[in-house]
Amino acid sequence: MSERLIYLPLGGAGEIGMNAYVYGYGAPGKERLILVDLGVTFGDMDSSPGIDLIMPDLSWLVDNRDRLEGIFITHGHEDHLGAVGHLWARLGVPIYARQFTGALCRLKLEEMGHPADTVKITGPRPEVTRLGPFTVQFVPVSHSIPESAALVIDTPAGRVVHTGDFKLDGTPVVGERFDPEMWHDIANEGRGIKALTCDSTNVFSTHPGRSEAVLANPITEWVLAQKNMVIATTFASNIARLKTLAEAAIAADRKVCLLGRAMRRMVSVGLETGVLTDFPNTIGPDEAAGLPRNKVMLLVTGSQGERRAASAQLSRGRYLGLSLKEGDSFLFSSKTIPGNERSVGRIMNALSEMGIDLYDGDDGLFHVSGHANRPDIEALHDLLKPEIVIPMHGEHMHLREHMTIARSKGIASSVATNGMMVELTGEAPKVVDQVETGRLYLDGNVLIGSMDGIVRDRIRMALNGHALVSVIVDEDDNPLPDAWVEISGLPGRSRGGEDLAAHIEGELAEFLESADRKTARDDAKIEEAVRKITRQVSMEEIGKKPEVTVIISRLMAE
Amino acid sequence: MSERLIYLPLGGAGEIGMNAYVYGYGAPGKERLILVDLGVTFGDMDSSPGIDLIMPDLSWLVDNRDRLEGIFITHGHEDHLGAVGHLWARLGVPIYARQFTGALCRLKLEEMGHPADTVKITGPRPEVTRLGPFTVQFVPVSHSIPESAALVIDTPAGRVVHTGDFKLDGTPVVGERFDPEMWHDIANEGRGIKALTCDSTNVFSTHPGRSEAVLANPITEWVLAQKNMVIATTFASNIARLKTLAEAAIAADRKVCLLGRAMRRMVSVGLETGVLTDFPNTIGPDEAAGLPRNKVMLLVTGSQGERRAASAQLSRGRYLGLSLKEGDSFLFSSKTIPGNERSVGRIMNALSEMGIDLYDGDDGLFHVSGHANRPDIEALHDLLKPEIVIPMHGEHMHLREHMTIARSKGIASSVATNGMMVELTGEAPKVVDQVETGRLYLDGNVLIGSMDGIVRDRIRMALNGHALVSVIVDEDDNPLPDAWVEISGLPGRSRGGEDLAAHIEGELAEFLESADRKTARDDAKIEEAVRKITRQVSMEEIGKKPEVTVIISRLMAE
Repeated sequence: MSERLIYLPLGGAGEIGMNAYVYGYGAPGKERLILVDLGVTFGDMDSSPGIDLIMPDLSWLVDNRDRLEGIFITHGHEDHLGAVGHLWARLGVPIYARQFTGALCRLKLEEMGHPADTVKITGPRPEVTRLGPFTVQFVPVSHSIPESAALVIDTPAGRVVHTGDFKLDGTPVVGERFDPEMWHDIANEGRGIKALTCDSTNVFSTHPGRSEAVLANPITEWVLAQKNMVIATTFASNIARLKTLAEAAIAADRKVCLLGRAMRRMVSVGLETGVLTDFPNTIGPDEAAGLPRNKVMLLVTGSQGERRAASAQLSRGRYLGLSLKEGDSFLFSSKTIPGNERSVGRIMNALSEMGIDLYDGDDGLFHVSGHANRPDIEALHDLLKPEIVIPMHGEHMHLREHMTIARSKGIASSVATNGMMVELTGEAPKVVDQVETGRLYLDGNVLIGSMDGIVRDRIRMALNGHALVSVIVDEDDNPLPDAWVEISGLPGRSRGGEDLAAHIEGELAEFLESADRKTARDDAKIEEAVRKITRQVSMEEIGKKPEVTVIISRLMAE
Repeated sequence: MSERLIYLPLGGAGEIGMNAYVYGYGAPGKERLILVDLGVTFGDMDSSPGIDLIMPDLSWLVDNRDRLEGIFITHGHEDHLGAVGHLWARLGVPIYARQFTGALCRLKLEEMGHPADTVKITGPRPEVTRLGPFTVQFVPVSHSIPESAALVIDTPAGRVVHTGDFKLDGTPVVGERFDPEMWHDIANEGRGIKALTCDSTNVFSTHPGRSEAVLANPITEWVLAQKNMVIATTFASNIARLKTLAEAAIAADRKVCLLGRAMRRMVSVGLETGVLTDFPNTIGPDEAAGLPRNKVMLLVTGSQGERRAASAQLSRGRYLGLSLKEGDSFLFSSKTIPGNERSVGRIMNALSEMGIDLYDGDDGLFHVSGHANRPDIEALHDLLKPEIVIPMHGEHMHLREHMTIARSKGIASSVATNGMMVELTGEAPKVVDQVETGRLYLDGNVLIGSMDGIVRDRIRMALNGHALVSVIVDEDDNPLPDAWVEISGLPGRSRGGEDLAAHIEGELAEFLESADRKTARDDAKIEEAVRKITRQVSMEEIGKKPEVTVIISRLMAE
């Protein structure tokens, strides 16, 4: 039999972010395909200055779009659906999602002017979606956002379970619990589980994960103990946490005010779609500003230190008529994502300078993770008894650790990173192809490739500074000796006090005056020499070689 | 009596890094001064791209250098002595340090061509250094580098204890233990302790600190269990850790090879000054490459993910003839400093891709901190019974937490950040002045101010890209319509595929052709209009406003 089942991550495998996983079934090279998730990741100054959003390069999938049946979105986090608005048009197939997730997808599509009815709202198991050789069910799992779903994907080659993001939470406060009985059934229907593609985020956390519900008491006690204004931040999409925080506020006779667009949007989509019920009434910032400080809780965006979010704004001063004061209490009901430590620290220190008491999730009282820890991952392996485990949603070291755990239980497993096409039809995963993948950067409103050199040039200017040289060549091919040098992001003077631009101009004048006819007629030769002189003089004067742009203007005889 | 005792941090208070603390005694404005420590901090891409070293702006101290008696260096870490080579010449006074620290200071001075005998090697208590109104003793404390010292500073207004960096370690493996009896004597001589200026780094760690000695067994057992090459990284200056690691290697019948200049230098200075004895013989990389993999331990620099250090080089491939292989074991015997997570993660993932097994200090088996934790800080308060506690060596939130702890014990305390001059003569600290402070950046070989705008321009180019426009105006003050636009770090084409530079040139041609005489004669007017058009067109085309440099060349009639 020549048909095969394949798995091909285009994002999210070898990194945490921009999830995009392809499954295929059919004759080699003719497999019918589905895509699971279409997320973004966020830029950082180190590797992508000026870039807000990063998304997977789907070139391979676009080239094969005639084989693509549909897109399934497991849940509403940005790293799973954030690229839907930007990339859907390149694929043009229907999107399947549950109600809350689907509502968020539709907002993404509408923002980019695409039709909302592209999203087909799909109910959970036992509802099935049949697309080509695939029969797909959304199966509720618990996570840090409501309505998170694993996918059960049935194919002629067997059943694949794609976990999406999950934890084993029996009491998730909002949304559905993880239901071991249902998963037992899924594992034991028919031929069992061929392959489990499984979240690896917390594989290095060795203690069992804790339920969202354990936070209610500590948070309520904490709010009751505070004497002035209480401010709390968490991910806007963590609606269960928002509810716990808001209910703690009510218990302490405080009104709740939501600050930040994302938070208001999440709560309203939650209410509209019915995943959220009984959320306490909230008040606006005007009303909050008029109440005694001990009667208010602000629930604010910006738990990761985002510069434009409400917590950052409040740490810089007045925001929407509200300002924080000495003796207020600020809770980060969150964990700082690796890489965001500096931004979060900046806000915490700014709040500390205002005399505000800080609390965070570090000791576990005020935060639990949304991902399965190592013992939970092992419990899922044991429950589902898959033939194959494919670790996903992790950096390379997470995937490798997860593979090691699976293999130690006698389960076939291997690490598949972005671009590796793996056949799952046999007893063990087998790499059958390596396709081109990469990252797209949203720069302004243009999608550019991460390897296009544009961001590389920006990084170089940031590290080395920039020198601009303008050279004019007259009608007779004689360069005018007075080149003009303009420096940006470079010290203007050397250690000895000499003017850098003037010094470069002096050296360039010597060269231009003595340039021979052949050189003077050749833009490339002039440019090369000018660049070399500029870099040499800079190195001598300030110990640094700048990026150099040379403009040569040739005057035309009239 | 009008004389007073003052404390003035110029670096290290409100940040972790670039320590520089001034003490003064005398009539207000005429106090005689000493400086404690002169360190650096390291740049990062977010706030200081292209900058390797950052140091305190000593302008105030330079203006008052006639009042400065000397500089005391507590220990050999870069954040305490790294600026000695760069800034000593601005102060020109003797430097006092113990033997090992002094040897490191001399290397720093020699690198910059300054006389080594500037450093006066000073023995520990009971030896005293008398400078003006100050009598200073170096008192050994334990830390993660040998010969760390606190300073006991006696003045007519009483005794100040400046802890430097410390932990309460009775068995520090290399160097002197923390000696409670000696500190009891120091606290009870004469009038007791007026003020304690105290390390705050680990004030948020709630468990008592652990001794360096607890690592020997776990590390030895770990090395014995490894089957192939063992590689371990830690701070080069943590000589005790290097010794523990090297002795574990010997116990496992492995030879030790040191990789990285800083590590070889630290071990050799340690041996020369006698603080290190019995370090196992080491082999060079050539010899290491020739041995069976299970007979070698590499001790390498780069525990913080530094790009040029040995661990980064090894993660990228062959280094000095050595390369890592699947099945090797790599230990980070260290803690990742906040902000370095991404760099360390990059190396770990690269090693994971090579099939190398990773181990780190996260579960406490393979790393202990060099700083006092909260219970240790409290124990020091209790032992010394100071009238005043001044928290130092911490971000604002650390200092504030430390102050709260001190106050809860009835000790007078307040937060003093860089630039706050605090009088310690009374019963409680009192702010008496706020002096200008800041940061100097070493850019290439030039020291620039952090607020000079140079680095700001680099950050802007990195975020926004750069457009260079060259305009030529002829002898009759007519602008030539064909301006030349060169873009750097910007998408060349809009979403619709239009050429950005060409489009800007087109719009500029329209403006230049129709510019009136008054505008054409005024460089500032042309520049303003050109910048505005360039930014507008860019915003329309690519959704982004670049930095713009305009060069106007005026042709002269001959």
